[in-house]
Amino acid sequence: MQNFDYQTPTRLIFGKDVISSLPDVMKPLGKKVLMTYGSGSIKKLGLYDKVKELLANYEIYELSDIQPNPKYDPSVLDGVRICKEKKIDVILSVGGGSVLDCSKAIAAGATYEGEPWDLISYKVKAKAALPIVDILTLAATGSEYDCGGVISRTETNDKIGYVDSLLFPVCSILDPVYTFTVSKKQTAAGCADAMNHIMEQYFTEDTTLLNDGFCEAGLKSLMVNAKKCLENPEDYTARAEMMQACTYGCNGIYALGNSASGWPCHGMEHALSAYYDITHGEGLAILTPRWMKHILSDRTLERFVKYGVNVFGIDSSFEPYEIAEKAIEETYHFFESIGIPMHLKDVGIDESRLSEMAHHIAVNEGLESAYVPLSEQDILDILKASL
Amino acid sequence: MQNFDYQTPTRLIFGKDVISSLPDVMKPLGKKVLMTYGSGSIKKLGLYDKVKELLANYEIYELSDIQPNPKYDPSVLDGVRICKEKKIDVILSVGGGSVLDCSKAIAAGATYEGEPWDLISYKVKAKAALPIVDILTLAATGSEYDCGGVISRTETNDKIGYVDSLLFPVCSILDPVYTFTVSKKQTAAGCADAMNHIMEQYFTEDTTLLNDGFCEAGLKSLMVNAKKCLENPEDYTARAEMMQACTYGCNGIYALGNSASGWPCHGMEHALSAYYDITHGEGLAILTPRWMKHILSDRTLERFVKYGVNVFGIDSSFEPYEIAEKAIEETYHFFESIGIPMHLKDVGIDESRLSEMAHHIAVNEGLESAYVPLSEQDILDILKASL
Repeated sequence: MQNFDYQTPTRLIFGKDVISSLPDVMKPLGKKVLMTYGSGSIKKLGLYDKVKELLANYEIYELSDIQPNPKYDPSVLDGVRICKEKKIDVILSVGGGSVLDCSKAIAAGATYEGEPWDLISYKVKAKAALPIVDILTLAATGSEYDCGGVISRTETNDKIGYVDSLLFPVCSILDPVYTFTVSKKQTAAGCADAMNHIMEQYFTEDTTLLNDGFCEAGLKSLMVNAKKCLENPEDYTARAEMMQACTYGCNGIYALGNSASGWPCHGMEHALSAYYDITHGEGLAILTPRWMKHILSDRTLERFVKYGVNVFGIDSSFEPYEIAEKAIEETYHFFESIGIPMHLKDVGIDESRLSEMAHHIAVNEGLESAYVPLSEQDILDILKASL
Repeated sequence: MQNFDYQTPTRLIFGKDVISSLPDVMKPLGKKVLMTYGSGSIKKLGLYDKVKELLANYEIYELSDIQPNPKYDPSVLDGVRICKEKKIDVILSVGGGSVLDCSKAIAAGATYEGEPWDLISYKVKAKAALPIVDILTLAATGSEYDCGGVISRTETNDKIGYVDSLLFPVCSILDPVYTFTVSKKQTAAGCADAMNHIMEQYFTEDTTLLNDGFCEAGLKSLMVNAKKCLENPEDYTARAEMMQACTYGCNGIYALGNSASGWPCHGMEHALSAYYDITHGEGLAILTPRWMKHILSDRTLERFVKYGVNVFGIDSSFEPYEIAEKAIEETYHFFESIGIPMHLKDVGIDESRLSEMAHHIAVNEGLESAYVPLSEQDILDILKASL
């Protein structure tokens, strides 16, 4: 077991109608608010009006149109500019993980004199950040309970996971009802994203019995509940259980004391969505079974057997390699069963830039020190197998 | 699924030699320290000298001789007196859960003008508390990651769980090596305590798939690792995994969104150890299977079947009641197998005061609103069955 240093100070207020807590949560944080959101679905939900009503006596500025795979330019830059110009006290992120990720980069950039990219690219360590409160409308990324955000810079095909302990939200307001209107496509992609967060932490060394059990519970809960959400989008319990299982995805609690895994599928997927702007969860779902197949070996066999037996209920009396291969197939079939396109070609990626992406990943993602080290050739093989 | 409002801000620094972080942790908290500890085992461990060496430039006052089932008088009162007289900035708890529980009551009492019992008995809500840092030497209570403490008042046979969000430790320093010298008796009792924390949260309604899986993982980890610790007290991995599984016991994460269970075994055990000062974990282990037997019914059957199949691996094709009864037997036998005396008579409790204790429990513990409501007669029946 590895040493660890862990802290997640975020307050979670979870359940039906918990939006009513918003004024109490915001009270100590200041009167000048930057409200960040995406394409306007929060207006259809009535959430935009509700926030305005609850915070009637606040000075609210807005940054809208934050896209999935949130962009440094214009979103982060615009947000930082508003924060500086208006002397914003607190950021209120209303939306999914992309809005929140973008808000985190803005929160750090707002207190920094230089280019925000210095912080995101780890050239400079932030000294402070504005406080963030979020109201979540999509179960997926776990950004509501971690201190990281992923920011894309289109002109350089960079997609960087920016992590700093200053960036934990003060409070995340999680009402599963706000996820009722999430489309089937996004529900499935959210499930795949959250499952991959767990797999990235499960497939490594030095795991503990407790962590393995937590991970297996997370995976099983996501698979059962995502299916229920797809069948009945207004199944409160299923939406709530899915939201809960996603929440712990990236704050480390699934893997305290495990060896670092390097998060290889995320490393590879970041290039896919940086180059092609595809849906992150779909990219992960496509890559995961191919990566699994690529790394299956005597060294990793035990992990795959445990995964197959405990997550998919495969009979433990089968031969180990049979269990492992079946587990990889089941992974593929589960993603397929929730409607995810399972080939890169299905999401608009052909062979033309695979080598370029493999090179970009190899140079930028540090996957030579992943659980199973991946060279540029390994990465290219996985990408090709994913076509 | 129930609504919840959850926050655990404590920082966990976990692993070999993490004591070296102590100066950095203490730095922002002030120079006047009350160091609290128990019977002196920290001196044998070398921990007392290590702390003095690491905090050489601090003004350290001491409160020693804090007992298991820590006492309001003299420990809490003495600690509060020292804090007020010496204008203590921060409490450093070095020891097990009892020392830490006592330190929490002191931390609250130190900033309150009146009798500390007003706070502990919930007559008055604390407005502030001194910061607490702890170095843990026993895996059991989970106090290192929660905001509660149990305090006993001998003259009234009161043993109260005092909970206030002000009382989260700022930081818990968890080095499994410090638990190598824990006796077999205390290792087993710690395991039983931690297991019961989980069972109290598992046996209730409205549980989620994720929570059930977390609880089952916790129970299995504790059973496997406690046995290893008993066989080889210096098995680092086993001590570390046990410490990890205990840590989450009482901060709520095993049951976010579950219905309140009322923690019935703890309610009953508090009277046993208040009247007889027995080891808390042993009291819990004795009561648990008798309580289980008492509450097994058509209403609770599903829980016991799930527990039996997922925790003990009982064949799910058996009849449900057969699985449930077997699960209760396995619970009893597990505790017996780790050397816990499994009858009240074995720990010095005879029938003479059972009725008095049952009455005390019924009046003070609110178990009429537990998962399965317990009347005074129910409680007496469980105590009698535990003789």
